[in-house]
Amino acid sequence: MCGIAAAYNVPDAAYAVSLMLKRLQHRGRSGAGIVSSDGSVLHEVRGLGLVDQVFDRVDLPARLPGALAVGHVRYATTGHHGLAANIQPLAAKLKRGPLAVAHNGNLLNHETLRRGMEAEGAIFGTTSDTETFLHLLARSERPTTPEALRDACGEVVGAYSLLFLSPTELFAIRDPYGFRPLVCAPCGDGWLFASETCALDLFRTGPAEEVLPGEMIQCVSSGLWRGRLAEAPVRRQCSFEQIYFSRPDSVTFGETCNDVRERLGAALAAKETVRGDIVVPVPDSSNAMALAYADAAGVPFKFGLIRDHNTGRTFITPGQDARIHGVRMKLNPVASLVAGKRVMLVDDSIVRGTTMKKVVALLREAGAAEAHVRIASPRFIHPCFWGIDTPSFSELAAAQADDETLRAMIGADSLVYLTVAELREALGDADGSRFCTTCFSGKPPC
Amino acid sequence: MCGIAAAYNVPDAAYAVSLMLKRLQHRGRSGAGIVSSDGSVLHEVRGLGLVDQVFDRVDLPARLPGALAVGHVRYATTGHHGLAANIQPLAAKLKRGPLAVAHNGNLLNHETLRRGMEAEGAIFGTTSDTETFLHLLARSERPTTPEALRDACGEVVGAYSLLFLSPTELFAIRDPYGFRPLVCAPCGDGWLFASETCALDLFRTGPAEEVLPGEMIQCVSSGLWRGRLAEAPVRRQCSFEQIYFSRPDSVTFGETCNDVRERLGAALAAKETVRGDIVVPVPDSSNAMALAYADAAGVPFKFGLIRDHNTGRTFITPGQDARIHGVRMKLNPVASLVAGKRVMLVDDSIVRGTTMKKVVALLREAGAAEAHVRIASPRFIHPCFWGIDTPSFSELAAAQADDETLRAMIGADSLVYLTVAELREALGDADGSRFCTTCFSGKPPC
Amino acid sequence: MCGIAAAYNVPDAAYAVSLMLKRLQHRGRSGAGIVSSDGSVLHEVRGLGLVDQVFDRVDLPARLPGALAVGHVRYATTGHHGLAANIQPLAAKLKRGPLAVAHNGNLLNHETLRRGMEAEGAIFGTTSDTETFLHLLARSERPTTPEALRDACGEVVGAYSLLFLSPTELFAIRDPYGFRPLVCAPCGDGWLFASETCALDLFRTGPAEEVLPGEMIQCVSSGLWRGRLAEAPVRRQCSFEQIYFSRPDSVTFGETCNDVRERLGAALAAKETVRGDIVVPVPDSSNAMALAYADAAGVPFKFGLIRDHNTGRTFITPGQDARIHGVRMKLNPVASLVAGKRVMLVDDSIVRGTTMKKVVALLREAGAAEAHVRIASPRFIHPCFWGIDTPSFSELAAAQADDETLRAMIGADSLVYLTVAELREALGDADGSRFCTTCFSGKPPC
Amino acid sequence: MCGIAAAYNVPDAAYAVSLMLKRLQHRGRSGAGIVSSDGSVLHEVRGLGLVDQVFDRVDLPARLPGALAVGHVRYATTGHHGLAANIQPLAAKLKRGPLAVAHNGNLLNHETLRRGMEAEGAIFGTTSDTETFLHLLARSERPTTPEALRDACGEVVGAYSLLFLSPTELFAIRDPYGFRPLVCAPCGDGWLFASETCALDLFRTGPAEEVLPGEMIQCVSSGLWRGRLAEAPVRRQCSFEQIYFSRPDSVTFGETCNDVRERLGAALAAKETVRGDIVVPVPDSSNAMALAYADAAGVPFKFGLIRDHNTGRTFITPGQDARIHGVRMKLNPVASLVAGKRVMLVDDSIVRGTTMKKVVALLREAGAAEAHVRIASPRFIHPCFWGIDTPSFSELAAAQADDETLRAMIGADSLVYLTVAELREALGDADGSRFCTTCFSGKPPC
Repeated sequence: MCGIAAAYNVPDAAYAVSLMLKRLQHRGRSGAGIVSSDGSVLHEVRGLGLVDQVFDRVDLPARLPGALAVGHVRYATTGHHGLAANIQPLAAKLKRGPLAVAHNGNLLNHETLRRGMEAEGAIFGTTSDTETFLHLLARSERPTTPEALRDACGEVVGAYSLLFLSPTELFAIRDPYGFRPLVCAPCGDGWLFASETCALDLFRTGPAEEVLPGEMIQCVSSGLWRGRLAEAPVRRQCSFEQIYFSRPDSVTFGETCNDVRERLGAALAAKETVRGDIVVPVPDSSNAMALAYADAAGVPFKFGLIRDHNTGRTFITPGQDARIHGVRMKLNPVASLVAGKRVMLVDDSIVRGTTMKKVVALLREAGAAEAHVRIASPRFIHPCFWGIDTPSFSELAAAQADDETLRAMIGADSLVYLTVAELREALGDADGSRFCTTCFSGKPPC
Repeated sequence: MCGIAAAYNVPDAAYAVSLMLKRLQHRGRSGAGIVSSDGSVLHEVRGLGLVDQVFDRVDLPARLPGALAVGHVRYATTGHHGLAANIQPLAAKLKRGPLAVAHNGNLLNHETLRRGMEAEGAIFGTTSDTETFLHLLARSERPTTPEALRDACGEVVGAYSLLFLSPTELFAIRDPYGFRPLVCAPCGDGWLFASETCALDLFRTGPAEEVLPGEMIQCVSSGLWRGRLAEAPVRRQCSFEQIYFSRPDSVTFGETCNDVRERLGAALAAKETVRGDIVVPVPDSSNAMALAYADAAGVPFKFGLIRDHNTGRTFITPGQDARIHGVRMKLNPVASLVAGKRVMLVDDSIVRGTTMKKVVALLREAGAAEAHVRIASPRFIHPCFWGIDTPSFSELAAAQADDETLRAMIGADSLVYLTVAELREALGDADGSRFCTTCFSGKPPC
Repeated sequence: MCGIAAAYNVPDAAYAVSLMLKRLQHRGRSGAGIVSSDGSVLHEVRGLGLVDQVFDRVDLPARLPGALAVGHVRYATTGHHGLAANIQPLAAKLKRGPLAVAHNGNLLNHETLRRGMEAEGAIFGTTSDTETFLHLLARSERPTTPEALRDACGEVVGAYSLLFLSPTELFAIRDPYGFRPLVCAPCGDGWLFASETCALDLFRTGPAEEVLPGEMIQCVSSGLWRGRLAEAPVRRQCSFEQIYFSRPDSVTFGETCNDVRERLGAALAAKETVRGDIVVPVPDSSNAMALAYADAAGVPFKFGLIRDHNTGRTFITPGQDARIHGVRMKLNPVASLVAGKRVMLVDDSIVRGTTMKKVVALLREAGAAEAHVRIASPRFIHPCFWGIDTPSFSELAAAQADDETLRAMIGADSLVYLTVAELREALGDADGSRFCTTCFSGKPPC
Repeated sequence: MCGIAAAYNVPDAAYAVSLMLKRLQHRGRSGAGIVSSDGSVLHEVRGLGLVDQVFDRVDLPARLPGALAVGHVRYATTGHHGLAANIQPLAAKLKRGPLAVAHNGNLLNHETLRRGMEAEGAIFGTTSDTETFLHLLARSERPTTPEALRDACGEVVGAYSLLFLSPTELFAIRDPYGFRPLVCAPCGDGWLFASETCALDLFRTGPAEEVLPGEMIQCVSSGLWRGRLAEAPVRRQCSFEQIYFSRPDSVTFGETCNDVRERLGAALAAKETVRGDIVVPVPDSSNAMALAYADAAGVPFKFGLIRDHNTGRTFITPGQDARIHGVRMKLNPVASLVAGKRVMLVDDSIVRGTTMKKVVALLREAGAAEAHVRIASPRFIHPCFWGIDTPSFSELAAAQADDETLRAMIGADSLVYLTVAELREALGDADGSRFCTTCFSGKPPC
């Protein structure tokens, strides 16, 4: 996933970006970095861990001076989370001068591009696909940066929301399909950019709007220069942002995620055949879904599982062992609520299935009479190559087992998913013209 | 507040205690410590900050070996939170041998006792009232530790849940009024103790039970030796544990806090005269209250405020400035839910009023048509001297202003509290025989 | 050993003390601490490690405000160096008010005193003999602090140079025998105290002078009030200060240590029967001795061993294994100087003998034809109970083996010590009336 | 300056390299790094600060596994010492695979090469000239690495001692002039490389020898493959290595530095016209010079200045202010030795002159009757572009002032330097055919 943020013509830009990154912490907890510009030189701080850990004891105005800054929080894929060199924003010196880039997304053809450039003598400092952009820009013969950016984006295939910082310029780009989100808002005499509006909400900004699919925005002193990379063929917005990634208070792809999630929960209720005694969310990501399900189903909503916030999101800890071990540390059932009850347990998705198995076991230990699992999205059956860190086929529970097998594996009394059509309906995209649902359908987005 | 935990005859006792302290982190975030015994020597680690910060990089089996351990998380009162020497468990060498103590509560007569002992030549290493216990034990002529403990407790007046660790013994004590909670459960061949059951839930234990008011428990290899300090006159359990401190999944004073909170929310609804469009909790501490209010009032419950869990509880950060500044970092309204709505905002209590003022402002900025504040407890009008860290009279909003003034100060359209009688009813203590409500009534508990 | 320092009526007293402690770092590298007074409250910072490690990132003016301060560097005895609670200055609250103490020395009767006070109900927070002083002061009925200090010192037996800090007062005390050093000098409108003059040299002070044996000095605004604890029977100054502990630039017990060491080296040369080709010191502690030996013997002095200053003094690392392993890391021979030469290797002393054995082996590996070891002090045959951290009899090489056995053990071609009489002569104390030489003679000092 | 080290086919190669880097710490204290190979993957750890600070808490076998490793200690030039990205070894992915490089020296034409490669689309991740090598290698069409290395070295002009590490290979290269040192020795079944022999001395190695000027060495399992980059025109060994940089126990450019320094000191004595009472070195770098001067002049050598080793070398701290402030912290005169004496103060060189001015003042404060400054090298009048971090002309004291002005500035009674001819004579290079003396003569080396 990852989260990105930038500030242009904002006093103490790095401080503003650090607050936004902290607000985007749910998008990545493995590393964080900020590059600022004082108008002539780029300054860089990066490190492993949470935003607070990286910037603790860093004297921001001294180490990251200036009114322009770009930042990144990193969601590590298993096995590579220790590679400090991959922490973004990446920065390098090109013939055009210094340039930093923060990237949310994933390129499909970066290995091919990379091998080609290596054969011509390029050297790569990281294993990240993001570095590809810097090399393409470095090789462009175009006289202006916007032209070079357009050329570079023309060569890559995949998902990319990008923020580029030179000593005096800030560019924001979103790929023509608009896979990953990116928003902006005016703030004082400058501009703020972020993956989600919840980060902009920290400041008194003007109205937030999307960086449009296929758009390239250049901040200039008088406002924004908005150009097009290419004709945007059709949106392919990531449906998993609406289901899980984005915070519920963020307006992503034009709609508040909470509202989408309420519709997903209601859709689940509409097809219900079991009557439970209580509805319990797996907090906090499925809260809105479970609440709407309960309302629609006429079953009491209860906070039957308490989350311990002194640890991170279950999904986000790299390494399978730590994940299993952590469930009991993170979730505790309220025995007085669940004992003797038919519990309708609502969650946003099942990826590996290991967490859900543990949660069901916790509920049964606490005395639940029945545990019915309701998932407010379709079966997750296909890895994502457009920017979500997903496991391979062999680890995707729903790709390996039919519903009955999976139900038995997680120990539930029943297991119900939404269908892809129901998901699209709830997303307000019945014809499938705006959202990517590849992870659920297996059909390529484009 | 503070939280305490101990393990007796449990392998890697310090590790078990560290997990329990982490689960009790909501009871204190300013410092943490563990003292373990390897059977002959006490080992100590203490530090400022969160449990994870103090024990990060500490090789627990090497630094804190043994099957007995006692631990403490500290809730700092403003102005003293930097005093590292006050971090518990305290430990000292007495003629009886080494002894460590972890204390949750507050002594009323410790200054008097202290001055008396100082006059006779005692020296104090801390400013903590907890050290008083060690001095009283050191001075006791009684041949056995239980007798000395009984004598020491006979001299102090106030609230105390205590865990004492010698190289070979563990004692748990609760004051005769039972102000502060303390529970225990068998685990394997040993025993676990903690302030709340949510900490015991991390392990596969036998049934948890209260250390009773006025009880002194000594762990022995064959089980528990349970004796009495004194006749327990009458329970004076802290009602604020039920309202705010204890986790909702904890069974405190014999009842799950979630259930008490649901009754408090329902009691609020029962006296409602305004009909709102939506009910919004100030997450997470008022979730159960708001949900029950919504159910009883027949008004939709909505997650209209999203909490950022990368920072701590509002109440828990020392220093007024940081608290004000932090609200916007911690809470963000979901504009699509609250815009144009009459919002019934439910919270557990108002202490200084500064947070609530900011929350109401956030809701109005997000477009709420009306903001009605409902507090699921009575006016907080009196400082607590029995273990809750409360500000002085002059800082208690409800002690300084009548309801109308306070309503205007926080900017709400209306403001409703429970009465003390309604609180007692909801606590199942209509005659006021079991709960201390001094902070709400101003009447001394005993 | 340990080193102590204090500042009275000096702006930013804690900063001045921190610089002095750094200059006294050779007296102890295991822990450091400072207690300052802002006139009413004592502030404390202590930690394990070097002065720079403890006070790195500590905002001294904020954490240790005030014009009075006292500090300590700790030399850990093997096995106890991890006990953070023992790091000085110790501080406690007495009926007289808060008091901090820094102590260099060792009490002989502290176990007896301690057991007596514990039996009467005292509790001890540390295992340090220094805490005894605080308890004795706490128990004194005397109305004034000077009287109480005189009483307390009257009860202890042993070596003590002491600095006491109350919120408004600073006291310096040296035991009647004057075992351990303590000096002072006026600085601006105030006073500085330190174990050695090299620490005072950092500042523009007036002339330094000794705190006299048996003297108690109280700083008052108009100057120093100098009183007597007791009649000083006879000086028993530690001869090992002159031989090894004090820095060569310090004026200790009235004479610059460099000059004493030159006389020790010359005394060695006076009894020489072997004619070497070159004289090589074991740097840096024997530099002056070897230089004077070379001058007197008419043999060229050479820097034949180079010391790596990225590690500490050999003697100072706790744990025998680390010490052996460290010699090659710390010392490297200059092969071109020693190859084929009869090397006269001069060192200040042999304690365990393990380092010397390794140094001789290093010289032989580098091609030395002969290695003659010359020790500028007598055989070290007796543990010290007056403040030097020495091993037990069984680990003292010279207590376990005669000269020939020891020579063979360390692999030298010859081994020569000074006699006790020669040492006294070089110390300018031919009649033995001023210096303690118990570690060399085995005869008790008093 | 910087220091480099490598190990090939040595168990726990990174540990061996870390010990060598620690021994080379005097060559750079601002940053350190190690890259190891486990045979297929390169592992990297780098950081700001001392070797101990960077590798403290790093589990070397886990983080840097394998039998091949290369390391670097960095000497920061003022103003850039915070740029973490510049800490070596640099590593990148080329078409040939991963490659790491550690470099001691400086390239004269790297800006030109860089601009050319940037124009062709290369991107640079650092501001270091070392990265140039990686780009040249990446661009080479040559099929084998040795050929590509030869080509790359053919394009650069300047000083370079280099160590390259691929997953399976180690290469050592020294520029044709041999400006900077590099030595190697067999160790077990493998090889060790280092800037100085003092680092090799930590291990039981076979005889050490120079990597020859213009030589490229490839480690292979059966031994070393030694080839030539180019015909070595003439040696231009850095004379400042002999004067100051290398440790006295290192055999650099074929001779032990201590011995060279003794000749430099003797040369100073040979031209002496003043008769001092004592000779005092500025410890430790001028110890051997001062000792030889004293012997030759027949004036007693005295340790008249004591160095505090708890801080670094004077020359090595970036920032002029810290340097001035630090002199009193680092050096303390022994008043009893210098008082009333005509002091002949011997130092290796004068760069900015600020330290020497302070040292002279310290001696006078301590009572020296006269202070005559003797410098065992010529006037330092020209910045170095071949790898020594020197200030610009405007900061070089001897480039800005004639001897009399400089003498007055530092407050000495007299000031004498060696001439360039005397330096060459002492270096054993009377015809100037082997040593670079550009910093003293201003004449370019080639």
